[in-house]
Amino acid sequence: MLLHLQTWAECEAYLKRSTAIIVPIGSTEQHGPNGLIGTDAICAEYISHRVGEQADAMVGPTIGIGMAQHHLAFAGSITMRPTTMIAYVRDYVRSLAVHGFDRFYFINGHGGTVATLGAAFNELYAEQSLDTTGILRRVRCEQRNWYETTGVKAISAKEYTGREGSHATPSEVAVTQFIHPDAIKRVGMEPVGPRPRRYTDSRDLRSLHPDGRIGSDPSLATPEVGKRLVAAAVGDLVPDFKAFVAAA
Amino acid sequence: MLLHLQTWAECEAYLKRSTAIIVPIGSTEQHGPNGLIGTDAICAEYISHRVGEQADAMVGPTIGIGMAQHHLAFAGSITMRPTTMIAYVRDYVRSLAVHGFDRFYFINGHGGTVATLGAAFNELYAEQSLDTTGILRRVRCEQRNWYETTGVKAISAKEYTGREGSHATPSEVAVTQFIHPDAIKRVGMEPVGPRPRRYTDSRDLRSLHPDGRIGSDPSLATPEVGKRLVAAAVGDLVPDFKAFVAAA
Amino acid sequence: MLLHLQTWAECEAYLKRSTAIIVPIGSTEQHGPNGLIGTDAICAEYISHRVGEQADAMVGPTIGIGMAQHHLAFAGSITMRPTTMIAYVRDYVRSLAVHGFDRFYFINGHGGTVATLGAAFNELYAEQSLDTTGILRRVRCEQRNWYETTGVKAISAKEYTGREGSHATPSEVAVTQFIHPDAIKRVGMEPVGPRPRRYTDSRDLRSLHPDGRIGSDPSLATPEVGKRLVAAAVGDLVPDFKAFVAAA
Amino acid sequence: MLLHLQTWAECEAYLKRSTAIIVPIGSTEQHGPNGLIGTDAICAEYISHRVGEQADAMVGPTIGIGMAQHHLAFAGSITMRPTTMIAYVRDYVRSLAVHGFDRFYFINGHGGTVATLGAAFNELYAEQSLDTTGILRRVRCEQRNWYETTGVKAISAKEYTGREGSHATPSEVAVTQFIHPDAIKRVGMEPVGPRPRRYTDSRDLRSLHPDGRIGSDPSLATPEVGKRLVAAAVGDLVPDFKAFVAAA
Amino acid sequence: MLLHLQTWAECEAYLKRSTAIIVPIGSTEQHGPNGLIGTDAICAEYISHRVGEQADAMVGPTIGIGMAQHHLAFAGSITMRPTTMIAYVRDYVRSLAVHGFDRFYFINGHGGTVATLGAAFNELYAEQSLDTTGILRRVRCEQRNWYETTGVKAISAKEYTGREGSHATPSEVAVTQFIHPDAIKRVGMEPVGPRPRRYTDSRDLRSLHPDGRIGSDPSLATPEVGKRLVAAAVGDLVPDFKAFVAAA
Amino acid sequence: MLLHLQTWAECEAYLKRSTAIIVPIGSTEQHGPNGLIGTDAICAEYISHRVGEQADAMVGPTIGIGMAQHHLAFAGSITMRPTTMIAYVRDYVRSLAVHGFDRFYFINGHGGTVATLGAAFNELYAEQSLDTTGILRRVRCEQRNWYETTGVKAISAKEYTGREGSHATPSEVAVTQFIHPDAIKRVGMEPVGPRPRRYTDSRDLRSLHPDGRIGSDPSLATPEVGKRLVAAAVGDLVPDFKAFVAAA
Repeated sequence: MLLHLQTWAECEAYLKRSTAIIVPIGSTEQHGPNGLIGTDAICAEYISHRVGEQADAMVGPTIGIGMAQHHLAFAGSITMRPTTMIAYVRDYVRSLAVHGFDRFYFINGHGGTVATLGAAFNELYAEQSLDTTGILRRVRCEQRNWYETTGVKAISAKEYTGREGSHATPSEVAVTQFIHPDAIKRVGMEPVGPRPRRYTDSRDLRSLHPDGRIGSDPSLATPEVGKRLVAAAVGDLVPDFKAFVAAA
Repeated sequence: MLLHLQTWAECEAYLKRSTAIIVPIGSTEQHGPNGLIGTDAICAEYISHRVGEQADAMVGPTIGIGMAQHHLAFAGSITMRPTTMIAYVRDYVRSLAVHGFDRFYFINGHGGTVATLGAAFNELYAEQSLDTTGILRRVRCEQRNWYETTGVKAISAKEYTGREGSHATPSEVAVTQFIHPDAIKRVGMEPVGPRPRRYTDSRDLRSLHPDGRIGSDPSLATPEVGKRLVAAAVGDLVPDFKAFVAAA
Repeated sequence: MLLHLQTWAECEAYLKRSTAIIVPIGSTEQHGPNGLIGTDAICAEYISHRVGEQADAMVGPTIGIGMAQHHLAFAGSITMRPTTMIAYVRDYVRSLAVHGFDRFYFINGHGGTVATLGAAFNELYAEQSLDTTGILRRVRCEQRNWYETTGVKAISAKEYTGREGSHATPSEVAVTQFIHPDAIKRVGMEPVGPRPRRYTDSRDLRSLHPDGRIGSDPSLATPEVGKRLVAAAVGDLVPDFKAFVAAA
Repeated sequence: MLLHLQTWAECEAYLKRSTAIIVPIGSTEQHGPNGLIGTDAICAEYISHRVGEQADAMVGPTIGIGMAQHHLAFAGSITMRPTTMIAYVRDYVRSLAVHGFDRFYFINGHGGTVATLGAAFNELYAEQSLDTTGILRRVRCEQRNWYETTGVKAISAKEYTGREGSHATPSEVAVTQFIHPDAIKRVGMEPVGPRPRRYTDSRDLRSLHPDGRIGSDPSLATPEVGKRLVAAAVGDLVPDFKAFVAAA
Repeated sequence: MLLHLQTWAECEAYLKRSTAIIVPIGSTEQHGPNGLIGTDAICAEYISHRVGEQADAMVGPTIGIGMAQHHLAFAGSITMRPTTMIAYVRDYVRSLAVHGFDRFYFINGHGGTVATLGAAFNELYAEQSLDTTGILRRVRCEQRNWYETTGVKAISAKEYTGREGSHATPSEVAVTQFIHPDAIKRVGMEPVGPRPRRYTDSRDLRSLHPDGRIGSDPSLATPEVGKRLVAAAVGDLVPDFKAFVAAA
Repeated sequence: MLLHLQTWAECEAYLKRSTAIIVPIGSTEQHGPNGLIGTDAICAEYISHRVGEQADAMVGPTIGIGMAQHHLAFAGSITMRPTTMIAYVRDYVRSLAVHGFDRFYFINGHGGTVATLGAAFNELYAEQSLDTTGILRRVRCEQRNWYETTGVKAISAKEYTGREGSHATPSEVAVTQFIHPDAIKRVGMEPVGPRPRRYTDSRDLRSLHPDGRIGSDPSLATPEVGKRLVAAAVGDLVPDFKAFVAAA
């Protein structure tokens, strides 16, 4: 059930049975030699839509741009500064809270966004905690990384041991290949990217990871494994989402 | 050519022949009895993708949430406050400017965003105008409303005279019906919505326009006209975009 | 009735019969070879004061600095960045809302400010639309450009056809000559300034319009026409203001 | 020499002989039973214009709204929040710095603005101090309260001993009576207003000072003394301004 | 009674008998040849703790970083920009207001922070003054500079006449020597630092005051006088704090 | 080597041999029945000072207030909103970068701050990544939680298995008992606090954890174990800090 494809009256009807919404959040950033710039947004959106279907839940518009300052030395990468993302998530959530939504389940596709999204939740909660009158509508937010679900990690461990890495991974590239078979890129690359110390800004990341991969070998990606990864992620996220909704 | 479906190396290659990018910008807000909440984003994105194809130009990620405070009294509507949108557009543009993009052509689907997007451009330009050293990379931005192109207005005048209105119009609903034939909604409604004075905030808009339409009769919408509207918009925007790129 | 020349008790008395206020808003920016830097503020203030007199309405302090980043390549120009103007207008309006003012009629003298002022209104309205409790006092704002009133356009069309342009126009220069006859400047200039594509930032504007005019021939300005323009603008704005106040 | 009445070319010519500018800064706030809401702006503007004449210096547009949150319980008072004023002063100064102005001499008419204006200067200086490359144009700012000049204090001490108070003073009311003889208000009042502890917010101020005066007896004000006060202030400020300009 | 050393239940108990809190506020900035970078924080904290003991009052965490942009040309100096300090003080105060604290007595050790702290108070008050419903908890703030208390000035006048200066003073150095006898620095210096015109940014300050002192001779400092200064400051601040608490 | 106890010249000398600095960061928030409100700041500061001694490194002023919105329902808790903390950390780091510091090693005592501090680092890095000219001084930041070092976890596992919890833990309480033996609180409490789902805002946390503990039994804390925990944390952090400094 995609918010974008509902009328307002249908959305109002939905709110009578549920006040929860799924929010796909990705990023627009380089993903190595054969990864799509939209990888994180594509994966998060596709998986969220499937979770919404299976859980019979509303899915909001995808947040396609994330916190990706560290990738700005590679063409096509776009970032929201953390303060911008905090304002953006705040408006997104407070708008829907006007209508009665109060549980926001973010399905995230980008590790670089985790901390800032956590900060955004706390900015929202701080408004509530500093409100001594209790008139502000209170919301509850949660974030889950699809690539860290149990099922996904099991498949990755089996298929890509030691070659998964942490960015431009074969897993995420596989998922995009499954979703966009027409956009599979054939690019030669060294087997596994370097994985030295933690990067800081974009120049630093590029000097450490010249082709954009971080400890990964995305040449291993295939649409077939991508399909299984989606199923595994959805299989884990649906009950987790339901538990979030059901929690007192 | 969608940025989301490129690798960073492909984007880098593109920059050698063009520094221009098309940015679809819509909104997520109620669109009357039979209009989709995602109408403005859906139309802007679809038309932008077609313009990108025909002009052989890069298309960036869709900005799916706009300035829609006036619709917040209807379920499902989401707004960015103007200051948030200014920060968001600023980060979007400045990120791509790092890579060398310097011409940004926004194809807009929502009248309510026009002023704020104009303000966002001026915030970007103000950075440049206040920079006395000239070290900041200068960008040029433009916005065009697809629904105000000559071709679209001609079709609308012929098909929907006196029933087009200014929100939840038969034109935009027709375009979404063409794009999403599975999401056509059959809803009874009065022929033409009321069109009194200009609304202000969301409560005001709802009191003036109880079902969300503004002077429009979207029951007239058909996918067939939607298809023609898309073609007309694209036909007008492609040469306009090219002129923008070619301008000294 | 100028707010500046009232005591607080007189203002309180006014509020018993009206909650509307007129706000002159101009700009401080270059106006070509013979135009005053204060042109937009001078015109907006003078016309607003006359409207206030004829409509027996309160007139607030003039906002003399506008969004003028595009003129910063010419000495003496001052801009508020859009985000600054949004904060400034917000504080101006919310302060007066404390006292009970709830209708704000901005008489504007500068095209460059229109979008940002519109964004500022939406920032105010967004506060109201995101307020679910309804405790925030709701305001209604409107803006009118004096130079686009019917009467002014008729005179301009007659006196300056093809030479009015869009900046440093003979109309606005004429109005300032009427108001400040001692500050009429005699400067030689080419008959009509260039009018190529739309400018972006200040360096761009200056490269397109080397003497600051945009498609205009302000050498035609005379105080006599200025006097008639003021009368025409006031004649159109007074009933428009009254309609704004009377609207349900 | 008023910036508002110059052309950009005249301003450019001025900059060849001086990079200093005088900035009048006042406030729009209640001034007791017989004081005008615009008192602080009126006084600061008038005195600044006279200083500009005698010192042959440029005078910028008046900042007519100040930090006046404490007066908001009286009708007609308008405040900029401190953060808004900091942004506003920052834009004002940085705009003129583009043209080459680098010495800003603020003539202030409102005690409530002093701290915030000082903070605004430090925000500007912090930009410069955090700029390690030295590319940002450096400016120097100063503020002077006209009502605290030696000459003004001498007259006040002689004319109003024990009745000057600190707000809605006979001195400032006298100055406005001299400037606006048509707006002299005849209002009965108790001889001297109360002067208890320092106020905080607007409700607090009103509870301590029910008619808006603070320790003052503005019924003593006459235009004749107002004229002398202006002369005294200007007499002190002109050499002080010149010393500011001349300082290495 | 230090907040840091209480449990929440103890703090809750305190609130039953008092809603006042003392807040030490200092700075981290160069203090001349023999002064510690932490001088202002050290003095404010130590004196505040003593005042808290004698007044049986709660003392909050020390704000150790102040507005010190002007010292940034000397190693080790740290500043909060004014806007940052305003946000910081706002959060500090609003957090404690949640629990019921409503009187905040800042004991300040740094002249450069005075204006910005005043602006921060007004930002807090502006929230209250713009709140028309009265639901926001109202607070009252005060600041006192320990070095300007009567007792301190008397000792300084006696011990350091003409050599006290306004920064890196013998008084404040003496107090730190008393508090940190192990960190007394022996550094040769000229008798009294220069004291020309007022500085602006950090490069300006350093050019005027090459070793960081401003008109002072801190070589005179001794722990013995430091001890007396502390006693004097505390002696003056305790009754002043009590009066602040007792005020209606 | 505490920055607070150095002169600027000593700091300058230090910078000749090292550009790294340790920054203690804690929080001021309730810590259950027997924990001090300052627990997180006290632990982070004390451990940082010891690490500084053993690593012969500079230690900056403690950031004593963290992101603690979730504790605001308990008296004495203070929070910085995430956006405030981002501004604060930004100013702290950029100030020291002026002097040449470029490696910032934060020793953190509060889990609730981790995400926001990560966001703050990315705000700093985003400035660098968006700076196309490379003129901004680049910094590198790292954060370590002392309570998650290997040595600390080993002791906790041995001493407090199943009773450590995640807030108001026996480990952190033990450390404060070692540091402040005079402030050990004797308070009766149930053996282990509840540990249900993740909390959101402060009301939510208090409803889940009525006495402020989260899954912990801090009645087990003793100063003796506290002493060993400090030694273990320092033992792990010193080489980690050195590796951070030595990294290319």
